[in-house]
Amino acid sequence: MQRFVNDPDLIVEDMLSGFVKANPETELSDKNDRVIKFTKASNTDKVGLVTGGGSGHEPAFLGYLGDGLLDAVAVGEVFSSPPAQAFYDAILEADKGKGVAILFGNYAGDNMNVKMAVQMADEEDIPVKYIVANDDIASSPKETKEKRHGIAGGFFMWKAGGARAALGGSIDEVIKSAENIVNKTRSICIGLSPCTIPAVGKPNFQIEDGTMETGVGHHGEAGIKKEKLKTANGIAEDITGRILEDFAFNDKRELAVMISGLGSTPVMELYVLYNKVEKILKDKGHKIYKVYIGNFVTSLDMNGASLTIVDLDDEIKDLLEFPASPVGMKNY
Amino acid sequence: MQRFVNDPDLIVEDMLSGFVKANPETELSDKNDRVIKFTKASNTDKVGLVTGGGSGHEPAFLGYLGDGLLDAVAVGEVFSSPPAQAFYDAILEADKGKGVAILFGNYAGDNMNVKMAVQMADEEDIPVKYIVANDDIASSPKETKEKRHGIAGGFFMWKAGGARAALGGSIDEVIKSAENIVNKTRSICIGLSPCTIPAVGKPNFQIEDGTMETGVGHHGEAGIKKEKLKTANGIAEDITGRILEDFAFNDKRELAVMISGLGSTPVMELYVLYNKVEKILKDKGHKIYKVYIGNFVTSLDMNGASLTIVDLDDEIKDLLEFPASPVGMKNY
Repeated sequence: MQRFVNDPDLIVEDMLSGFVKANPETELSDKNDRVIKFTKASNTDKVGLVTGGGSGHEPAFLGYLGDGLLDAVAVGEVFSSPPAQAFYDAILEADKGKGVAILFGNYAGDNMNVKMAVQMADEEDIPVKYIVANDDIASSPKETKEKRHGIAGGFFMWKAGGARAALGGSIDEVIKSAENIVNKTRSICIGLSPCTIPAVGKPNFQIEDGTMETGVGHHGEAGIKKEKLKTANGIAEDITGRILEDFAFNDKRELAVMISGLGSTPVMELYVLYNKVEKILKDKGHKIYKVYIGNFVTSLDMNGASLTIVDLDDEIKDLLEFPASPVGMKNY
Repeated sequence: MQRFVNDPDLIVEDMLSGFVKANPETELSDKNDRVIKFTKASNTDKVGLVTGGGSGHEPAFLGYLGDGLLDAVAVGEVFSSPPAQAFYDAILEADKGKGVAILFGNYAGDNMNVKMAVQMADEEDIPVKYIVANDDIASSPKETKEKRHGIAGGFFMWKAGGARAALGGSIDEVIKSAENIVNKTRSICIGLSPCTIPAVGKPNFQIEDGTMETGVGHHGEAGIKKEKLKTANGIAEDITGRILEDFAFNDKRELAVMISGLGSTPVMELYVLYNKVEKILKDKGHKIYKVYIGNFVTSLDMNGASLTIVDLDDEIKDLLEFPASPVGMKNY
């Protein structure tokens, strides 16, 4: 395993220690060393925003702490949900007296632990509500959309919820804005090569050379199709088509488009994919309002990419334009 | 080869086409389809800034177009210098009547082509000066520092030169500010796995599993040592020590530190490295003023990282704080 690691079982501790040193506007919580908080908020008179999830998806989740985004993050082991106590302690850190909204991705462990944390907060009379991202169209059919996992589309949920909170929205308003964008966001992944959890030391699933896996999950969850590796244009056609079919638009729409690398994909290839995605969407008469190309939500060293499309409305456009300063992506 | 690619010989064309679509504040030059320019400068009454180099290092070079940074970029094939004509056409695009500064990395092909382009500009009476980044301490001994290659430290040269130009500096002032930071910037790479040029289809050098290559170049140039893979802390000690030895500080300094992934390195591991680099620098009494963690200058899908340290002075600190908006890193 060719990795920068000390004790593989302590990689999350080492990462967090380095992260807070590199980002002095963040701190580990005194209550819980798996909770990290944003300490330099320019406005604290607002609803607190919390997320959490397994590690290995950096810059998600902790990189999205910052003004206009998240206030506290519960950090799990690699690809594992943080415990309920971590979500609860993140709630305590994020609460500035106006309550807390938890915006997280739909996975069984996270769901269970967030619900327990909300119960703990209820007992302390801290107002908390939550919403889950479920943008991964490959993870469950449309009829059971509520079972779909959250992948890169979570970024848009944090962005909209974070902006609404910064604009002075109540918990209900934050949840409503986040829910609106969640309902209008669809993603799908293509996997070209698997990833390796450092403590395991070998890939936790396989993608044979010369093949690709459409709809692979961020932790190697089985996709919907394994087939011969297509050209970039062929892949772009397939995944854009699948998302458009899921949306089933009956008019020409205004869209935001994100292509995120999964960890080991050269950035140049994300632009190669976008070149075709853009053509397909324009040829169908859709307008592209905003484009996001880069590594937004990754899976360790997985080779692959996710395509996310957001069906915009005026509210979403305003919230996407609201300034945000993620601590993990700065100093350019 | 598990890649998102159409015709591997046309990957640069496909990338550029996607790049300008994703970044509507950029355009391909009418003069040359391997020149890309920033079209939405908030201030055009300034010295133009040009760079260029081979593709495969994204977000460098074209992602650093933008306010406070570059005005035009000459784009080469993967890992190959752009021709002199491309540098010349980039000069024409960047020149707004106040002349042009070319800030590029020290490689034989780029050097030759930039010099030819400067000659062409001289014949047209366009004032042009240039400076090369030579931060890679592994590429030549200290006694022949002028032979060293430019790697991630080029970022700081663009940042300082870009800020000086935006502040209204003359060509000479831009070159002087860029030269000051070039002289105070040192980098070194660690390679863990090689990269593959799409048109070649197999790695162009080898790093055996279980080993690492200290000082490997951004195109697989031989490093200074191949040895058994160390822990992240062991690697951090080695590379930080090598840079400090090269600087040979005789007092406690204020520093900027960048750790850039080379393409397929999980971001979490960059923080693991930084955790130790910070400790070493602090233990020696140095102060860390600003930290840059992410993928700033890459080498396709190479697994590895570069460490860059900048020895700060008041001028450099001011220039690093000057706002910049790289088009390739936005919409967070």
